[in-house]
Amino acid sequence: MTPSQRPKSAVTGLAHLRVGFGDDFYVGPGRADLLELIGETGSISEAAKRMGMSYKRAWSLVQALNQGFGAPLVETARGGAAQGGATVTAAGQDILRRYRHMQEATRLAIADDVAAITRSHREAKGGT
Amino acid sequence: MTPSQRPKSAVTGLAHLRVGFGDDFYVGPGRADLLELIGETGSISEAAKRMGMSYKRAWSLVQALNQGFGAPLVETARGGAAQGGATVTAAGQDILRRYRHMQEATRLAIADDVAAITRSHREAKGGT
Repeated sequence: MTPSQRPKSAVTGLAHLRVGFGDDFYVGPGRADLLELIGETGSISEAAKRMGMSYKRAWSLVQALNQGFGAPLVETARGGAAQGGATVTAAGQDILRRYRHMQEATRLAIADDVAAITRSHREAKGGT
Repeated sequence: MTPSQRPKSAVTGLAHLRVGFGDDFYVGPGRADLLELIGETGSISEAAKRMGMSYKRAWSLVQALNQGFGAPLVETARGGAAQGGATVTAAGQDILRRYRHMQEATRLAIADDVAAITRSHREAKGGT
């Protein structure tokens, strides 16, 4: 199960990190998971299925990623994306790797505040 | 203009940070901005107005914050929340302060990856 498929409400700690790049490109957990699953499965349709997402939605996300970045992050084989297979380019792999690194760096950076709020939250819940 | 009021697409760097605490409480940029504006204005209705949000929506967010945390983060005076004024409790101020600190810590933690992706994004845009 990828992070964005977990129930939003069950997370303690970092739940959603979106990073923007100017007015045309951003990466968030859903886009990162989609890149990762396309890389793992070699297929946009299979990646969509595993994310519980329509093929049309996954395809439009791939288009948004490629056009937003300005160069292909996902390449599709000739003959139709659904059947022909898809690969994550070197640029796409770099962005996915960096996004995962940013998630980890964020988890570390916020850990003390998360622990402090968790303690006061538990006390508040215990006291009611 | 508070961070969540900026167009989502105009941000370079951290665009959205949501932090969860178990299955009943989370803080994101909209909730933080609402707490901050209630603290500044002493009024849920004025805070809602400044966020371009209905009073009903702001009130339901306040309820979700208070019930989710398990103790009041916002307290309303007797006689009606809209007229009677509202204050952010010490617990609410602590959570707001910690959320702003987590945003800053995250910006620092992701800065190198943001710079690297920004460079490759500019190169990709320049090359098309």
